[in-house]
Amino acid sequence: MKSISVREIAKFFNGEIVGDDSRSFALVSKIDQAIPGSLSFLANNKYEDHLYSSAAGIILVSRTMELKKETDATLVKVDDPYSAFCEILNKYFNTYSEKKGIEDKAYIDKSTICGKDVYLGSFSYVSANCKIGERVKIYPNSFIGEGTVIGADTVIYSGVKIYHDIKIGSQCIIHSGCVIGSDGFGHAPQRDGSYLKIPQLGNVVIGDHVEIGANTTIDRATLGSTVIGNGVKLDNLIQVAHNVEIGENTVIAALAGVSGSVKLGKNCVIGGQVGFVGHIAIADGTQIGAQSGISKNVDEPGKQWIGSPIMPLQDAFRTQVVYRKLPALKAKVEELEKQINELQRNGQ
Amino acid sequence: MKSISVREIAKFFNGEIVGDDSRSFALVSKIDQAIPGSLSFLANNKYEDHLYSSAAGIILVSRTMELKKETDATLVKVDDPYSAFCEILNKYFNTYSEKKGIEDKAYIDKSTICGKDVYLGSFSYVSANCKIGERVKIYPNSFIGEGTVIGADTVIYSGVKIYHDIKIGSQCIIHSGCVIGSDGFGHAPQRDGSYLKIPQLGNVVIGDHVEIGANTTIDRATLGSTVIGNGVKLDNLIQVAHNVEIGENTVIAALAGVSGSVKLGKNCVIGGQVGFVGHIAIADGTQIGAQSGISKNVDEPGKQWIGSPIMPLQDAFRTQVVYRKLPALKAKVEELEKQINELQRNGQ
Amino acid sequence: MKSISVREIAKFFNGEIVGDDSRSFALVSKIDQAIPGSLSFLANNKYEDHLYSSAAGIILVSRTMELKKETDATLVKVDDPYSAFCEILNKYFNTYSEKKGIEDKAYIDKSTICGKDVYLGSFSYVSANCKIGERVKIYPNSFIGEGTVIGADTVIYSGVKIYHDIKIGSQCIIHSGCVIGSDGFGHAPQRDGSYLKIPQLGNVVIGDHVEIGANTTIDRATLGSTVIGNGVKLDNLIQVAHNVEIGENTVIAALAGVSGSVKLGKNCVIGGQVGFVGHIAIADGTQIGAQSGISKNVDEPGKQWIGSPIMPLQDAFRTQVVYRKLPALKAKVEELEKQINELQRNGQ
Repeated sequence: MKSISVREIAKFFNGEIVGDDSRSFALVSKIDQAIPGSLSFLANNKYEDHLYSSAAGIILVSRTMELKKETDATLVKVDDPYSAFCEILNKYFNTYSEKKGIEDKAYIDKSTICGKDVYLGSFSYVSANCKIGERVKIYPNSFIGEGTVIGADTVIYSGVKIYHDIKIGSQCIIHSGCVIGSDGFGHAPQRDGSYLKIPQLGNVVIGDHVEIGANTTIDRATLGSTVIGNGVKLDNLIQVAHNVEIGENTVIAALAGVSGSVKLGKNCVIGGQVGFVGHIAIADGTQIGAQSGISKNVDEPGKQWIGSPIMPLQDAFRTQVVYRKLPALKAKVEELEKQINELQRNGQ
Repeated sequence: MKSISVREIAKFFNGEIVGDDSRSFALVSKIDQAIPGSLSFLANNKYEDHLYSSAAGIILVSRTMELKKETDATLVKVDDPYSAFCEILNKYFNTYSEKKGIEDKAYIDKSTICGKDVYLGSFSYVSANCKIGERVKIYPNSFIGEGTVIGADTVIYSGVKIYHDIKIGSQCIIHSGCVIGSDGFGHAPQRDGSYLKIPQLGNVVIGDHVEIGANTTIDRATLGSTVIGNGVKLDNLIQVAHNVEIGENTVIAALAGVSGSVKLGKNCVIGGQVGFVGHIAIADGTQIGAQSGISKNVDEPGKQWIGSPIMPLQDAFRTQVVYRKLPALKAKVEELEKQINELQRNGQ
Repeated sequence: MKSISVREIAKFFNGEIVGDDSRSFALVSKIDQAIPGSLSFLANNKYEDHLYSSAAGIILVSRTMELKKETDATLVKVDDPYSAFCEILNKYFNTYSEKKGIEDKAYIDKSTICGKDVYLGSFSYVSANCKIGERVKIYPNSFIGEGTVIGADTVIYSGVKIYHDIKIGSQCIIHSGCVIGSDGFGHAPQRDGSYLKIPQLGNVVIGDHVEIGANTTIDRATLGSTVIGNGVKLDNLIQVAHNVEIGENTVIAALAGVSGSVKLGKNCVIGGQVGFVGHIAIADGTQIGAQSGISKNVDEPGKQWIGSPIMPLQDAFRTQVVYRKLPALKAKVEELEKQINELQRNGQ
């Protein structure tokens, strides 16, 4: 790893150096577990104390930071220390993923159109009539079904399974074990108790800059499309059912389940293990706490909810406090009953 | 796509045509988002208004439908419009899955017996001593362990992993990423705090007409078999533990977990994210709402339950209503306490 | 299957034979569903009645067992019947997994170092600069990323995906569909509502004797390591987020989710579908019931908890009892209110 100078960093982010501007770094670390001499960052001014105790040689801080005492570290004041740190990691430290070319043991159908500088790993299978954009990387053991289209610069890690006729945007990241385009769960009950399979003839359309976590599943639509908007981030082991639509920049944590035809707004934040019943609509900017269950539309945008079924966050906390002391409440009611009986006897 | 005449459809379902019987269609769509001229259906008479506003050219309706006003669409009266629509989709529109033959880069052990017209995709691996039925389709990147038997017409999508000695019936559909026959989760605690692995020597037996969703896992039995009955439908990301038995035509939604040795009845409907503790039995026809937790036997068949732990559906709703107003109930109890104190003071 | 004599078993476990010591067995079964003449075991003396009714020919029992009546079965008294039974299964009946050698259609990079007697199945891909220990078994269709190290005697079933720079100990078992080392779910919110990806540059370090269930996902750390201690057992479909640390011999049931930077103690037992919020610490020996939600540190070791949010087990049960009768409690409060009104009227 080569050494990067604090001046280079300050110049790149239009930052202000406070302290020794001749320093450089070759490693990065967290401020509370800093490797001596490394680059670190302080995202939140309220943890300012770390500035004076950290072993980090250079620390990215906010432009609004005002030092209360001296520090050995060189500070670089920037607009957004966390984002700047991420950009440095991406630019200098993320040396993975430089693969190119189609490996010998891969299979790609002749009818498929492939952009420049694609990487296709061994034992990956690209079916007929696909379009694979420039610089797409498909790691080993992945499967791309017929007629599927993948936009430029998208990365598909090993063991991803994408069915036929799926559309995936550019600059997406799809982690191992994801399944995209499996049949929606649709079965019409018959008189004898058995079920008739409802054919799932739609597809999945995924926007740009989407990241999908490991072993997450996204079902194809019955008719039409299951739609994942630009910038959506899905964690691992999430279920997205048929005909769901997820708005731009919504993030969903692991093990959540979104039932059929749910329409999730933009910029929502959904906690882990949350479940939505089918055919409901959730307003933009909705935030839902972990393990919640949502059974009705959420119409008002930008509110926070929790519980199963969900309640506004503050109401839920107040209710939980009472819930946790229910036996005492019951005992009090019984005590009051006794006292009333006493009063009634005395009154006679 | 060729054009299909309304007369052909009416004849096939022994249906009655109301309106222009010279029409035909080449597309299908949902009645509330209908493509002009396409075939659609009305499953529930209470949404009858769609009949008069839909752009669909032909609409399948129930024999019991009586028109309140005129419609431009040609209607076809049939016994079950939804099922008829599904059958039409399957018959005319489901052109996927016509693959046959063993691709060059597949591996199949010499000792394995293969029926006629099997499809085996590249990078799929079929181990020794398997029996693969006629017209079975195994898409690329799947693995079939030693001694496993797969019935005729079953479809195994890409990236399915089936361990050794598993039995799968005919006309099943197994979606990508499923794991069938992994070891049950059995570990005997030892005095030093560590665990001894309990060998999992049983298998999994899956009936006919079973569909299993993407990334669902079904563990092999410790001894004996984990059993999935005929006609069972499992959604994505479901966990079925060792020695579970699931009765015929039971359906389970995504992210549910069925613990070891649970015996689930026939014709049950289990919601998403439901969990069962081990070693319990659930009566036939039981319906359980999403996110419920079941910790005891359900003995009475055909009832509806919800909650964690479960309660009868109506009781649960009544209880939830009170729960959501617990802070008000507590306030009222405190108010009553005050009034009683007042009464007591006055009575002295 | 060859026949094993009761004397051989008794000798191996230093056991005492009660009854006919000339017997032998070729099959094993559960005591309540015993195959005639097979070997079985009685783990818990309170089910003693099975001893007198079972068809088993030989039964392993505890040294403390005292017979109340005669039985046809030959008994072998040992220290721990269940563990002895497991060891017999492992020693004589677990004939699976005898594979060796690198199959023709596998890919292994020249720079990778491979121990003696490794098995590498077809369509498995081992990247550059890995170290694969002696007798490691990697079944078909698995992927091992660059620089990953796997300890001796570890078994990796088909379709496992392990990213780069991961460390896995010896004698581990990793089931099909597991993903190890996918990116942690880290995205820094930007002013325009989009997210900037936080590079995930750490890795995953897994100890010895760890078993990981099918389709479980373990994310790599942002910086540093996600750590799975020796002897940890994870069931299927579990999510372990970035920078989590799980202590030795902790077991977690299916569909549980452990959020980022959680520190789980040693010897914990975590139920199915449990969820932990991020950045909390759980004391050693903690036991948490299924579907619980943990939002705060658990400081006191060895306690039992349940609920979402969790409560001590006994408190939770008492509270649930009241919860289930909330409508009656509300009715009683309303009745008391009426009586108080009555008393107030009478007192005027």
